[in-house]
Amino acid sequence: MTFVNEPWRDRGRPSAERVEALLAEMTLEEKVAQLGSVWIQTDDPGNVAPLQDRFAAVEGLEERLRDGVGHLTRVYGTAPLSAAEGAARLRELQELVVTSNRLGVPAIAHEECLTGFATFGATAYPTPLAWAATFDPGLVERMAAAIGDDLRAAGVHQGLSPVLDVVRDYRWGRVEETLGEDPYLVGKIGAAYVRGLEGAGVIATLKHFAGYAASRAARNHAPVSIGPRELADVILPPFEVALREGGARSVMNSYTDLDGVPAAASADLLRRVLRDEWGFEGTVVSDYWSVPFLASMHRVAEDVAAAGAIALSAGIDVELPDTRGYGRNLVEQVKAGHVDEALVDESVRRVLRQKIDLGLLDDAPLVPDGAEDVDLDSARNRELAAEVAERSIVLLANTGRALPVDPLVTRRLAVIGPCAGDPRTLMGCYSFPNHVLDRFPERGMGLPVASILEGLTAEFPHADVRHCLGAEVSGDDASGIPEAAGVAAQADLVLLFVGDRAGMFGGGTSGEGCDAADLRLPGRQADLVEAVLATGTPTVLVVVSGRPYALGAYQDRVAALVQAFFPGVEGAAAVAGVLSGRVNPSGRLPVQIPHSPFVNPSTYLQPPLGRKAEGITVLDPTPAFPFGHGLSYAAITYEAMRTSQAEYGTDGTVEVRVSVRNDGDRRAEEVVQLYATDPVAQVARPAQWLVGFARVPLEAGESREVAFEVPAEAFSFTGLGGRRLVEPGEIVLSCGPSAADLPLSASIRLVGHPGKEF
Amino acid sequence: MTFVNEPWRDRGRPSAERVEALLAEMTLEEKVAQLGSVWIQTDDPGNVAPLQDRFAAVEGLEERLRDGVGHLTRVYGTAPLSAAEGAARLRELQELVVTSNRLGVPAIAHEECLTGFATFGATAYPTPLAWAATFDPGLVERMAAAIGDDLRAAGVHQGLSPVLDVVRDYRWGRVEETLGEDPYLVGKIGAAYVRGLEGAGVIATLKHFAGYAASRAARNHAPVSIGPRELADVILPPFEVALREGGARSVMNSYTDLDGVPAAASADLLRRVLRDEWGFEGTVVSDYWSVPFLASMHRVAEDVAAAGAIALSAGIDVELPDTRGYGRNLVEQVKAGHVDEALVDESVRRVLRQKIDLGLLDDAPLVPDGAEDVDLDSARNRELAAEVAERSIVLLANTGRALPVDPLVTRRLAVIGPCAGDPRTLMGCYSFPNHVLDRFPERGMGLPVASILEGLTAEFPHADVRHCLGAEVSGDDASGIPEAAGVAAQADLVLLFVGDRAGMFGGGTSGEGCDAADLRLPGRQADLVEAVLATGTPTVLVVVSGRPYALGAYQDRVAALVQAFFPGVEGAAAVAGVLSGRVNPSGRLPVQIPHSPFVNPSTYLQPPLGRKAEGITVLDPTPAFPFGHGLSYAAITYEAMRTSQAEYGTDGTVEVRVSVRNDGDRRAEEVVQLYATDPVAQVARPAQWLVGFARVPLEAGESREVAFEVPAEAFSFTGLGGRRLVEPGEIVLSCGPSAADLPLSASIRLVGHPGKEF
Repeated sequence: MTFVNEPWRDRGRPSAERVEALLAEMTLEEKVAQLGSVWIQTDDPGNVAPLQDRFAAVEGLEERLRDGVGHLTRVYGTAPLSAAEGAARLRELQELVVTSNRLGVPAIAHEECLTGFATFGATAYPTPLAWAATFDPGLVERMAAAIGDDLRAAGVHQGLSPVLDVVRDYRWGRVEETLGEDPYLVGKIGAAYVRGLEGAGVIATLKHFAGYAASRAARNHAPVSIGPRELADVILPPFEVALREGGARSVMNSYTDLDGVPAAASADLLRRVLRDEWGFEGTVVSDYWSVPFLASMHRVAEDVAAAGAIALSAGIDVELPDTRGYGRNLVEQVKAGHVDEALVDESVRRVLRQKIDLGLLDDAPLVPDGAEDVDLDSARNRELAAEVAERSIVLLANTGRALPVDPLVTRRLAVIGPCAGDPRTLMGCYSFPNHVLDRFPERGMGLPVASILEGLTAEFPHADVRHCLGAEVSGDDASGIPEAAGVAAQADLVLLFVGDRAGMFGGGTSGEGCDAADLRLPGRQADLVEAVLATGTPTVLVVVSGRPYALGAYQDRVAALVQAFFPGVEGAAAVAGVLSGRVNPSGRLPVQIPHSPFVNPSTYLQPPLGRKAEGITVLDPTPAFPFGHGLSYAAITYEAMRTSQAEYGTDGTVEVRVSVRNDGDRRAEEVVQLYATDPVAQVARPAQWLVGFARVPLEAGESREVAFEVPAEAFSFTGLGGRRLVEPGEIVLSCGPSAADLPLSASIRLVGHPGKEF
Repeated sequence: MTFVNEPWRDRGRPSAERVEALLAEMTLEEKVAQLGSVWIQTDDPGNVAPLQDRFAAVEGLEERLRDGVGHLTRVYGTAPLSAAEGAARLRELQELVVTSNRLGVPAIAHEECLTGFATFGATAYPTPLAWAATFDPGLVERMAAAIGDDLRAAGVHQGLSPVLDVVRDYRWGRVEETLGEDPYLVGKIGAAYVRGLEGAGVIATLKHFAGYAASRAARNHAPVSIGPRELADVILPPFEVALREGGARSVMNSYTDLDGVPAAASADLLRRVLRDEWGFEGTVVSDYWSVPFLASMHRVAEDVAAAGAIALSAGIDVELPDTRGYGRNLVEQVKAGHVDEALVDESVRRVLRQKIDLGLLDDAPLVPDGAEDVDLDSARNRELAAEVAERSIVLLANTGRALPVDPLVTRRLAVIGPCAGDPRTLMGCYSFPNHVLDRFPERGMGLPVASILEGLTAEFPHADVRHCLGAEVSGDDASGIPEAAGVAAQADLVLLFVGDRAGMFGGGTSGEGCDAADLRLPGRQADLVEAVLATGTPTVLVVVSGRPYALGAYQDRVAALVQAFFPGVEGAAAVAGVLSGRVNPSGRLPVQIPHSPFVNPSTYLQPPLGRKAEGITVLDPTPAFPFGHGLSYAAITYEAMRTSQAEYGTDGTVEVRVSVRNDGDRRAEEVVQLYATDPVAQVARPAQWLVGFARVPLEAGESREVAFEVPAEAFSFTGLGGRRLVEPGEIVLSCGPSAADLPLSASIRLVGHPGKEF
């Protein structure tokens, strides 16, 4: 059934005209249906009955499809389907959608893609926190383009990534999904990801708008205590950057309330900031069930119908993952006069515009030909996954007595810890294996993933490797620790792998819902570390995790310390390569590594009184390793820094040049970082914040000059009057390899009166 | 030198006229001097030289006194002076002030009085958190009246109490100084204290305005992330109530910034809220050094002079404890045109008005006759201290197998723990012994204070008491634990006293600056508890502390659990009385007792998503003992509850009657609590909050009806539009003995359209 003569199907007309033509055809019921979604969880992968037969078992499906469908939710990603199975199912479903509604409008198919296409057998890339640790937007953009290509080829139109929440509390389970704690870094890496995904023709979804990461005591969904200035200056900027520099076409709300107003009910966020201030024209989609949560959890609506009315009025265009507050409820709300139909039209326009722009109303296959044959774990994917992993691993500390481990020397290596032998500990919560497969154990991993142990065996063929679990990631079982200590005692070197397992199932310690009470290593891993260290055998402690753990107790007692944020399917080789020196480590911390497990919430973006304050508080939040920190096997010297002028306009651009030299004997990549300090401002400002970074390749002995162009907007903040401004006066720019090691600095003066207001 | 003919000394004229007359006489320098303070720390109590000789050593004193002095800071409370010594010193100082300035204006003498007059030898009452645990405003008012009488008799005009910060994080060191975590309770107890102090003629100082308690990770002075709604609905109400119902004449700023704006620089707080909305006419005094901190810590001022200008403009009338940003700096700022002299005049008027109202410009002694002979530790004081202590102790859990301990039965009692033998563990941080005396160890305590061990020996004369320290409050020494376990093993019953020692000196664990990393018992006390419990001897665990500690690990393993917030100089007998049953415990928790040590920040005022959320987060903030909880040795039945109507106006008053019956065999005092729930509101509201309480004496078998009158304002909140309103709709009122045990409830409907806006 096609309607090729209808004006909305005429590719020759402008999109806006096609949208209006189609909208004009629609009944209220049909319009509202475009704002809903359908999630058919025909989960059982062993069910080989025809899809139509299985659909027959889905209650009320016919009625749910009759008026049309806005979104199809996770057709691939709900159960372990191969690419071929998924494509077939999506094809059948889209056909069913198109033939079930009078106007023949297909659905937007969305999927999760946080660490790659979250479907069975697809490449599970490193977790976003690892992307941020690369400080390499170009690489992240290439990775996202590969993800987008796979999604698009599979018939998926929208990916529910990236997460742009700025970390404010390391205990939060979703820290692994973020790009760290600095808004500038989050914005730059996030925008790069968006460019990659959107460039492949897939709608990127910025989430979670906004404030989610700052929930009380880091509990998932808990209330967010935040004021308008912190929101504007810390939480919102990455979203603005990812829209402006990345061109994202969708935004998803946060589950939480901010100062009492649920994000899904906040016209201030979803209309004033997003539409009026930023001019966003894409769709706002609800996080799963956050519309009904307005009634059941936030209690700002009497029932789910009222919740739908509130959400639409606030600015939620599309309800995900299914239709509860919208659909029939919303139709009734409109008919009862509680919701203006013009609001419905406005949201429907956005959805239809996306469907038209995606070509869904053109005479093209609803799922691309060949979708069944897409290789979701291609060599290209694997290369990118490896590259991201290699650049993300952070060498925190190195006495030089153990690392790098020469692979040509035969020695006894004890490989210990729960993250050594289990490849799932390499992958994030939203990787398909950790997110869904726990419910389908018989299906296996779906793709080959080497464990770190396997990676080490390949990297050190001459070593006498002895492996021992020691302790699980979580739980109270310490019975394996004595054996581990025994193995450690007999080795020349211990490689000890501790950290997280992602996912709420299977004893997970990181990921959605897996919020931590504190930042001690989970389970009995701290006991394992102590037992191993007590043997006196030199130990390289490698933390493979989704969040930073407090390492202050270990930093001076190990031969070396390495942090790998879930490095993905190619993580094992990357870790092994860093240990052997095949890979010169170049990752940098996108979050601090705390000294104490209990300094929560925490951020490096502290005004002076948020930092160590002797005589004022006995608590000291100084981290074990600062934001931006990361060593290599080279020795980099920061030589000189200069600005092009002493004064710049408050609307100008500051040009800074920094020269760095590799004094080591091997190639390195140095992440040169530029921070700003505002010595006097009208409000309390962080003592320092990131305004520029550059990943600089340096051959042994090479010296290079790095140029930064810093718009004065980088020094802006929300003034006493509530508007963002660039205040005239002194700014100190500092440069170095981390926020706490800034050997170069220069002072500039911003001039202009009054300060520019945005 | 007197000026009896001057109009400002004419008691026959109205105060306002006298103020204007004096102001008109003053030079700019003299006016500004009224906004400053002088702190002469001639500390050495062994120095018997005449005061004038000692003053001679104070640099620049003559100049500092020449133009006058606004406040004299802590003349009594800085060093261990007897009442006679203090009075003599104050008299000499006031004389010096009066004779040094041209117009002969004396200073306001202020002192700390958080747990009573904070001077050597004065009664140290229970800590404010214990006052709140009494749920007894009348008693607190009587106590404050006694404190006020002592201050006034000693020549002190202003006391720097009460602390009205609403607890948001139990780790904060100053939790002991607060009145707990519920704004209604804080407001009612705080207002009662203010009435007592002001009724005695002493200026009460509400502090800290505002938001101090919500600092990041509970670090003292750290930034406060808070929005305008939480500020208005949780933090500010106690201040408003204490002004309206208590008549406080002074307010002190908070050290922190709120969403980037330091309280000392916040015209929004100090002018818009305090003056414009609430009509406050008293003085705003700076917390000690918070004016210079605007430059050195918050960095919103270039230097201390600019800090002074900013503080005065924002609304700080008087700089304490000495003169840095004001004084000569402020004169120059005015002369340079950076500060309008009218602002100076406005603040000076308030100070002069207070001096005139206090009678300082009348022909009366500057220090009352007989000040040297005031008994600062009178029998009346002691009786009040005992009464507050007795009503504040909370029986958390009781299996009935140990408590009450019959004092007539001879048995072997093991009295163990760091809080058993050291009377300083009974007193709060701002008690003189813990606040100042650490620097003068040779002076002793200054007043008799029985330790708990002594209290027990008196209470149980027939018992065979063996005492053992076990472990210190803080530090790593566990060497005494085995001996303690041995003593426990040989006893019939263990009375185990763990908790805090207040003050930053001497290994303190509670009080200003003594912020806790988590809520485990400090030092090695948790190990001590485990060792004692392992003996199997029935154990009564008594926590004597300044904050709630997590007791989830113990609650089911002890014979009984008792919480005493620093109960003051009469605390030992009160604790012993509760254990013997001489005192039927009637204290109730003004803060939750957490189950886990790591659920921070925390409050019972949570919307549903801030509470346990299964499937959403693995963390569970449900406390071990809820807000309002407390047992007695009686058995109280909540019989019935009724409201006078089913509907009330949004500006009406809800009348609720509750009948309770004492089914036990002894007299009890039951704290009947009334909570509200708003099933649907326009913003996320706490699942419940306190709107009424009554301490009800009940003889054995007696039944009584308690009447509550709840103004509809108690259901108000800050709406989406930013104004406080009472929303029409359903409110559920629930009644019972704690926030988690509410056997009675009734639903009412608020009518009126639109909701009243305040």
